[in-house]
Amino acid sequence: MWGGRFQEPMDPRLDRLNRSLPVDRRLWREDLATNRAWVRALEGVRVLSADEARTLLGGLDDVERKLAAGAADGALDEDIHSLVERLLGESVGAVAGKLHTGRSRNDQCATDLRLWTLAALGRLDAALLALARALLAQARAGLDVLMPSYTHTQRAQPVRAAHWLLAHLWPLVRDRGRLADARRRASVLPLGSGAVAGSGFPVDRAALAKQLGFQAVSANSMDAVGDRDFAVEAVFTAALAGAHLSRLAEDLVLFSTAEFGFVVIAEPFTTGSSLMPQKRNPDSLELVRGSAPHLAGRLAGMLGSLKAMPAGYQKDFQESNAQLFAALDTAADGAELMAGVVERLTLQPRRMAAAIDPGTLATDLADLLVQAGVPFREAHGIVGALVRRAEELGTGIAEVGEADVRAIDQRLLAPQQGLGGPAEAVERRRIAGGTARAAVEAQLAAAETALGV
Amino acid sequence: MWGGRFQEPMDPRLDRLNRSLPVDRRLWREDLATNRAWVRALEGVRVLSADEARTLLGGLDDVERKLAAGAADGALDEDIHSLVERLLGESVGAVAGKLHTGRSRNDQCATDLRLWTLAALGRLDAALLALARALLAQARAGLDVLMPSYTHTQRAQPVRAAHWLLAHLWPLVRDRGRLADARRRASVLPLGSGAVAGSGFPVDRAALAKQLGFQAVSANSMDAVGDRDFAVEAVFTAALAGAHLSRLAEDLVLFSTAEFGFVVIAEPFTTGSSLMPQKRNPDSLELVRGSAPHLAGRLAGMLGSLKAMPAGYQKDFQESNAQLFAALDTAADGAELMAGVVERLTLQPRRMAAAIDPGTLATDLADLLVQAGVPFREAHGIVGALVRRAEELGTGIAEVGEADVRAIDQRLLAPQQGLGGPAEAVERRRIAGGTARAAVEAQLAAAETALGV
Amino acid sequence: MWGGRFQEPMDPRLDRLNRSLPVDRRLWREDLATNRAWVRALEGVRVLSADEARTLLGGLDDVERKLAAGAADGALDEDIHSLVERLLGESVGAVAGKLHTGRSRNDQCATDLRLWTLAALGRLDAALLALARALLAQARAGLDVLMPSYTHTQRAQPVRAAHWLLAHLWPLVRDRGRLADARRRASVLPLGSGAVAGSGFPVDRAALAKQLGFQAVSANSMDAVGDRDFAVEAVFTAALAGAHLSRLAEDLVLFSTAEFGFVVIAEPFTTGSSLMPQKRNPDSLELVRGSAPHLAGRLAGMLGSLKAMPAGYQKDFQESNAQLFAALDTAADGAELMAGVVERLTLQPRRMAAAIDPGTLATDLADLLVQAGVPFREAHGIVGALVRRAEELGTGIAEVGEADVRAIDQRLLAPQQGLGGPAEAVERRRIAGGTARAAVEAQLAAAETALGV
Amino acid sequence: MWGGRFQEPMDPRLDRLNRSLPVDRRLWREDLATNRAWVRALEGVRVLSADEARTLLGGLDDVERKLAAGAADGALDEDIHSLVERLLGESVGAVAGKLHTGRSRNDQCATDLRLWTLAALGRLDAALLALARALLAQARAGLDVLMPSYTHTQRAQPVRAAHWLLAHLWPLVRDRGRLADARRRASVLPLGSGAVAGSGFPVDRAALAKQLGFQAVSANSMDAVGDRDFAVEAVFTAALAGAHLSRLAEDLVLFSTAEFGFVVIAEPFTTGSSLMPQKRNPDSLELVRGSAPHLAGRLAGMLGSLKAMPAGYQKDFQESNAQLFAALDTAADGAELMAGVVERLTLQPRRMAAAIDPGTLATDLADLLVQAGVPFREAHGIVGALVRRAEELGTGIAEVGEADVRAIDQRLLAPQQGLGGPAEAVERRRIAGGTARAAVEAQLAAAETALGV
Repeated sequence: MWGGRFQEPMDPRLDRLNRSLPVDRRLWREDLATNRAWVRALEGVRVLSADEARTLLGGLDDVERKLAAGAADGALDEDIHSLVERLLGESVGAVAGKLHTGRSRNDQCATDLRLWTLAALGRLDAALLALARALLAQARAGLDVLMPSYTHTQRAQPVRAAHWLLAHLWPLVRDRGRLADARRRASVLPLGSGAVAGSGFPVDRAALAKQLGFQAVSANSMDAVGDRDFAVEAVFTAALAGAHLSRLAEDLVLFSTAEFGFVVIAEPFTTGSSLMPQKRNPDSLELVRGSAPHLAGRLAGMLGSLKAMPAGYQKDFQESNAQLFAALDTAADGAELMAGVVERLTLQPRRMAAAIDPGTLATDLADLLVQAGVPFREAHGIVGALVRRAEELGTGIAEVGEADVRAIDQRLLAPQQGLGGPAEAVERRRIAGGTARAAVEAQLAAAETALGV
Repeated sequence: MWGGRFQEPMDPRLDRLNRSLPVDRRLWREDLATNRAWVRALEGVRVLSADEARTLLGGLDDVERKLAAGAADGALDEDIHSLVERLLGESVGAVAGKLHTGRSRNDQCATDLRLWTLAALGRLDAALLALARALLAQARAGLDVLMPSYTHTQRAQPVRAAHWLLAHLWPLVRDRGRLADARRRASVLPLGSGAVAGSGFPVDRAALAKQLGFQAVSANSMDAVGDRDFAVEAVFTAALAGAHLSRLAEDLVLFSTAEFGFVVIAEPFTTGSSLMPQKRNPDSLELVRGSAPHLAGRLAGMLGSLKAMPAGYQKDFQESNAQLFAALDTAADGAELMAGVVERLTLQPRRMAAAIDPGTLATDLADLLVQAGVPFREAHGIVGALVRRAEELGTGIAEVGEADVRAIDQRLLAPQQGLGGPAEAVERRRIAGGTARAAVEAQLAAAETALGV
Repeated sequence: MWGGRFQEPMDPRLDRLNRSLPVDRRLWREDLATNRAWVRALEGVRVLSADEARTLLGGLDDVERKLAAGAADGALDEDIHSLVERLLGESVGAVAGKLHTGRSRNDQCATDLRLWTLAALGRLDAALLALARALLAQARAGLDVLMPSYTHTQRAQPVRAAHWLLAHLWPLVRDRGRLADARRRASVLPLGSGAVAGSGFPVDRAALAKQLGFQAVSANSMDAVGDRDFAVEAVFTAALAGAHLSRLAEDLVLFSTAEFGFVVIAEPFTTGSSLMPQKRNPDSLELVRGSAPHLAGRLAGMLGSLKAMPAGYQKDFQESNAQLFAALDTAADGAELMAGVVERLTLQPRRMAAAIDPGTLATDLADLLVQAGVPFREAHGIVGALVRRAEELGTGIAEVGEADVRAIDQRLLAPQQGLGGPAEAVERRRIAGGTARAAVEAQLAAAETALGV
Repeated sequence: MWGGRFQEPMDPRLDRLNRSLPVDRRLWREDLATNRAWVRALEGVRVLSADEARTLLGGLDDVERKLAAGAADGALDEDIHSLVERLLGESVGAVAGKLHTGRSRNDQCATDLRLWTLAALGRLDAALLALARALLAQARAGLDVLMPSYTHTQRAQPVRAAHWLLAHLWPLVRDRGRLADARRRASVLPLGSGAVAGSGFPVDRAALAKQLGFQAVSANSMDAVGDRDFAVEAVFTAALAGAHLSRLAEDLVLFSTAEFGFVVIAEPFTTGSSLMPQKRNPDSLELVRGSAPHLAGRLAGMLGSLKAMPAGYQKDFQESNAQLFAALDTAADGAELMAGVVERLTLQPRRMAAAIDPGTLATDLADLLVQAGVPFREAHGIVGALVRRAEELGTGIAEVGEADVRAIDQRLLAPQQGLGGPAEAVERRRIAGGTARAAVEAQLAAAETALGV
């Protein structure tokens, strides 16, 4: 493909690293699309006759059949582009040598990668949507299930289980917004940029873009062949989505322990132990959680590969392709798996309710004091003293007797009596984004709107 | 602030790590804004009387004066929020204890951070715009300056210097698009979310958002206090912008070597050596290039901090604030510095022209063969053989004599004669995004539109 | 210091980034040591007379007093080296201009950094040792406390609490080994390497090394000024130690939840909530856990800064110094804090014992079947069926009645009767590294040896 | 293998992520070794009779033949351990079910991984040694070739080409030291640790270690199954070595540009362009340089996976295996490729000599002034002025005329005359680690010793 001026064969050590076919063979569909569009573009500038174009398109159909049948298996070509060109030559003969006119693997590869990325972002989006729907369904079912919320992994205040589940839904809504932005920015056609300075043949790039489904045409050929921002941004959206998945996974790992017991992970999403017969482990959650740091690592690698890279194309880019593929696969696989986990999740309302200890109503007590005119900072101190006294007595804050309460502050007496239980507490937070039934119902409606369901 | 139930003092080892004032003191303006808005919100739900609200607002003015005068220097408070609350108490007395009603440092800190981030993204945007304008001005001036383009740091094809400069502008245009998206997503008010379950007082969050300049109100209190996506996304945009700056810096380091000599970096952007009197080093470029990997590292750290973090607030978040601040400072400082470098950059057209060796026209020669009907793949081989022969002869491809050319392929003769020089070559790439004068003029116009200048 | 050939002043944007004094001022003690040694070296090659050397050493004493008194506060010098040189000049006059003979800031800075790193690694080592001792003391006390071990955060098999605590000690022993290796490699003197090509004055580098406490002298001046391996390796050891601290922190966060209740974190290592009066949060653990990803991020940044850096000194190195300082501070602070947490940790043997549910003895049951001649794979299946039956019956595996057992496999009957409880189970693992009392006692002894206590 | 207590089949989404055979199948040799050793261990504690042991060992031979013939291709087993167990069962029948007695995949997998890592570190060590030897050979050949050294990519002072080449050798010597340390720490046997609490059968772990070639036995079963420090450390050594390779690659990219022309990369280590017939690109260097950031990213991922991981085994570990394999492959491949590049590298002494411009002797001139009694700081300023004057005159510092020199400082006259050329300059740096012939010869000898060649 490029050996005209060379006299010595490539060293096998270079060949091993240089040959990217094992990684980029998955771009074969995209490469065929790019080639087909290019045939029409060359026909448009009369580099190809109508006959030649027809022959090449027929040949590409043939190549498609061969690749679908596994022609890439064990092939020794340098990359998917050379493989397609070779197969095309085997199919249509010398005219195949006209296809690479006016273009370079630099712009071709960038085009294939963008096509692949657009599709992969679409797959990730669908997977996140599926997970969000599963959370929404569980949230609807958990509207009247109460549980403690946690900060610092310590019990904080009672909430509806729906509220907790929706706390994991909104990050996905943001992820989908980032995905849409990333797709918009990825939808720019590099083809026609040649190796770095633009094609020597004035093909109609707008028509190329339209045919391949791009929304715009790149403005600068040198930038176009050296730009991997779309890939880095795609991996970033995947990495942040992966972080969200890991947070959900962590909550579920925690809540499915014997000690918490708030949820049960369905058997098909767990595995056993080769040694311990009683084990049922939440491997789904751990695999998803464990993939998050590697997504971040892949992103760090891709950003690092851009550091100090001169403008235009450098071979340094090559390994980033493997990272791009792996990152988007991993995030989508993880989201799909988590969708399954959440769909089959079983809440354990009794265990949840039992965990709402009286201390989680301390804030409500302080708020009631405020309503009785005590400055909050003072109220906080008074209730803190009550908590300490209750702890000493080994009882709950509602059970501390009148004498003890009076000894702390007699203003506490009325609020303590009016405190009620978790059901009253969640209803007190009727603020937007809060835990009252109406607020959570509004939130469910907003989530439905945000997801378009 | 929280000690009611505690009996033992904090261990000094915890105090050292827990006290975030040295880092978050820079949020003081944001904290005052948040406090003022909260005073009005509490007045709206009658937790504060009009008189109390007036007193507190006056007190916050007083606190502002004290902080502007350095009241945070050497203060031992836990964080900026406690410092402000203490100063407010010193100013207005016990009524200060009412300010923290119905909120937590969790939602307050998230609000302050978002306000800070929005401003910081604005500063970064302005710095990138300044750099883009500087590149644009240089590009206009370099419209008719020719130079080699490079791939693999090897001479590729001739381009206009404007084309090279604009190749560094478009990434900044994309960065600004990402910044705008990040700002939109950051513009969501968490205040009113309390510690995790929502405020117990039904303040008007829409009014709060309006007063503080947020475009929306968070939908779920638990998500709101545990969401640092806006910070991670801000650092990502900064890191990718930093990678772009590093690529520009690398090109300028390379092009300002004695060996290339394509550009001269102005003295104010260079430094000397403490040992070698002749040295003038491009430290500006190296500092900017050297900050890119640390931006990526900070991003990796922030993503890593989210891994496996349960929903809601955890103290793990704390160090991420320092990383957020440093990342956005670094990126904006770097862009501002590079704007200065580029404004004062001097192109060296003669050195550039001298570097356009004849081999950089080999592609043109192959293209001419194509126009004469030779399939490109064959043309590539023929010209490759000519390049090899020219190398053997120690001459350029245009200088290889007729006999030698004929020995390779006689179809080469006419194209070789019609090849022309770099000026002809750049004009041959009149494709959109190419190097012809008209194409680059169109690109300049597009860049002006994209920058809104 | 280097302006001889310059005509224009430095641009303020460069000055802001170039001036490293705010970061490297902490190297002042190291810089004085380096300067003192260099005075003697220059005297040795007669660049300085004995009188001049005496004057300079006296001047350096004076500079030391000034710096100890805060002379670096608000100073506008470029870096610590220029500050010291300026102060020296103010103290002794023109002879100060002789001190920088035959050296560069490149070799001086590398020397200072290595001295600092050696000390910082020492501090980290001491902090890890303190934590290891605290774990050891708790392990000794927890020798006969039983608890479930966990894999996948699901109860696995009973262990001694000592065994769990020691599982967090051994990683620290490995860390200390890595620290010792890192110190050995850092203990190489760069001074005498000049800017890149070696000093023009043949000073006795072996004597310099001895005076400054280095074990060796660098072999190549170009490598010596461009080598930051020692810093990267130091940060790696810190980052891996930080990961270990985060694992311990995670276990303690989990075990100190209300739901587990295996340990109590002492008050001085917890904080409260500004809103919720009942809260006592394990902030110590979260701060330590939250610092681990930033350590990894700093390491990624430092490795990234080396990528594609030409041999010799480049200004890109500068930001890595800040990262080096921060990383080693963070790791040592974290280890010291965790030592405090562990020293004051209270185990809750009753809660631990209550968590050892019968299922954690399933492996023992299978092992007993093996001893009765059943192949393990079959035994695993038989016990698995028993576990399922017990779950259906809502009872433990030891409580399933004879008829049910017989229905599964009658070979189960005898092992089920001989199963015993957790105390018997831990004693069955008398293998080296296992849970039997003798094995753990041997482990305690080995830990004492490893720590040299 | 673990399904006794399960009733529902695994969800295909989990199966896809859980099945690690495609990644860990490369551990088959290690798994066979582990199995063989375990057979003997079980025989030692009479779980297996001598007959059974013989049968199993024969079966494992059979499994080895099958795996060598590709039995893992397309297999659907969960991992290499299940595959081996299944094949063994197919070979020897029910007795295969006895092999997994007293062990878990947790300790088995950790053992296999350590065996693999030890071998991979050996391969990397050999590759680094090969590269170091190649550098040494080139250095010997380049002992009397002069070139400019660079700092900040600006010409600094003349050096011997050997000195530059050796500046890339010493980092490899340090890498090999780190590799040796990493191997020592990796050489600890986990087998016998069971799932987490130790094997229920008191096998002789010291004998196991001896048979498998480990130097020590792990001290704590819980630590042993949850410890991946050896893998992280291995990847760190690979990542730092990769950074060194990238620095060498960068120098060679730069020096092989048309503009520098200091070296020629041999054809077998370059590739051409699919578009530009004249191109010969240093892809070897770019591939190696481009892999460095991904090594750092993999390391960040592995450290991130440890963050907040509870003690003991979690499934999160799984993806780290793929990263470990890829990192060590990449680093060794890169080092082997660079060895080839350096072996075939051609220095271009004339281009190198031509680049030693007179300004690179400015430090020598200042040093000569020092020898004439001028304080260095003053001498630096004087020579700086001369440099500026020479620049104004468009000449070298040696060519500035007497009148001009006198106008600057008449003390310059004699040193200017005695300055000599690059050959004199390199000889002036006869300090240890410097550029004089004797110093570089000593360095070559030291390098030979360090490499053991």
